[in-house]
Amino acid sequence: MRLRVDLIPREELSFSDVVLVVDVIRATTTAAAFLEAGASALYLTPSIESARAFKDEDVILGGEVGGLKPQGFDLGNSPQEALEAQVGGRTVVMSTTNGTKAAHLAARSAKHVLLASLYNAHAAARLAHELATEEVAVLCAGKEGRVGLDDTYTAGVLAEFLQLMGQYELDDGALVALSTRRTYPDPLEPLSLSAAAQALKQVGLEDDVPFCAQVAKSPAVPLLVGRSGEALIFHRG
Amino acid sequence: MRLRVDLIPREELSFSDVVLVVDVIRATTTAAAFLEAGASALYLTPSIESARAFKDEDVILGGEVGGLKPQGFDLGNSPQEALEAQVGGRTVVMSTTNGTKAAHLAARSAKHVLLASLYNAHAAARLAHELATEEVAVLCAGKEGRVGLDDTYTAGVLAEFLQLMGQYELDDGALVALSTRRTYPDPLEPLSLSAAAQALKQVGLEDDVPFCAQVAKSPAVPLLVGRSGEALIFHRG
Ligand SMILES: [Ca+2]
Ligand SMILES: [Ca+2]
Ligand SMILES: [Ca+2]
Repeated sequence: MRLRVDLIPREELSFSDVVLVVDVIRATTTAAAFLEAGASALYLTPSIESARAFKDEDVILGGEVGGLKPQGFDLGNSPQEALEAQVGGRTVVMSTTNGTKAAHLAARSAKHVLLASLYNAHAAARLAHELATEEVAVLCAGKEGRVGLDDTYTAGVLAEFLQLMGQYELDDGALVALSTRRTYPDPLEPLSLSAAAQALKQVGLEDDVPFCAQVAKSPAVPLLVGRSGEALIFHRG
Repeated sequence: MRLRVDLIPREELSFSDVVLVVDVIRATTTAAAFLEAGASALYLTPSIESARAFKDEDVILGGEVGGLKPQGFDLGNSPQEALEAQVGGRTVVMSTTNGTKAAHLAARSAKHVLLASLYNAHAAARLAHELATEEVAVLCAGKEGRVGLDDTYTAGVLAEFLQLMGQYELDDGALVALSTRRTYPDPLEPLSLSAAAQALKQVGLEDDVPFCAQVAKSPAVPLLVGRSGEALIFHRG
């Protein structure tokens, strides 16, 4: 089995099998938290506007623009808030900056798309390993086209878990991610150093970083099951 | 001073100050070796065809397509061969796959463009530090749009040298590159594991890898001084 890590989403990328999409601060952490809190489905839309189109009394809108809750949304992109939200049995519609784009890129070609974070790392790696027939790819969302230390580190943690479950042939990106993982024993360090955490700090939301740094706390893995218009529909895998 | 590392060239990138272009296996190693061997100027052309247009009795053509010497060229892209070539006082015209593209991308916006490798790492870092007023960027060539373990490692070595010379504010890419550097005490290991080395092996050219893994052996740093048509002209900086 091949293990491949793409540190930045690029339009030209295509995927033949399983993709773990990583936007650890905060979209893929928050997505897992919504399912952990009991949401029955998670819709990822490519824009704030297309999320608004799903507005309904049974639907929760969550997301961010520049880190902050968009106008008319019920919730921001905070995983702690997501975990505590009254979403049991309801549909959550999310739109975020980098993570949503990466998920849509993966969904163009992959057989299976999963949303992974440190929070659900063990479960996400296990499900990816079970579903894969030839390749597990980790697609890091990064930050506005640049490599993210936080996502690269998370890819390394996922790579470590995958290697515990089977033999993987590693590409250069996987070796770089594993190096990053091994450099920082405490996940809070690389996450706090990342540009993503710095940007959260500037809008006073840095309290979400320790939540995102928790490893393997949740078995909830969002798995792509279909589409509704432009939205990707995820259920708990 | 800022230190920024871009692990993959992307069309959207722009640079405000100094760029160290890294294609350690093999273009930027070979480029330094040509200057070390006494070449008076190095031209980098964006294609094999535009290199051929410079053909003349006083000009040496060097380069590769798929790792191999292009038809009608005097030399391939081997640094050992470059170091031993009779190029004293002559102009060398080079065209290679990934490194040349990265250099042209950097040259579009940067104030200063240097070609860096492990072979000239110390000298390249020192010159970059001297020239920079606000930012040193390391632009890794990667391999066909993907992250290269070899170039990422080299960026980490350059980052280490730069940090010895002054205070730098590191971006996420720099922290990832430094992690990779710290994971492998012996440069030959990450270089040998890289996809670039594997590709060389497939065409029987793996003997160049140990040459590329030598650290700080040469003070020769190619520095962009001008253009001739599509070609970038480098002199020893
Ligand atoms: Ca992020
Ligand atoms: Ca290369
Ligand atoms: Ca000169």
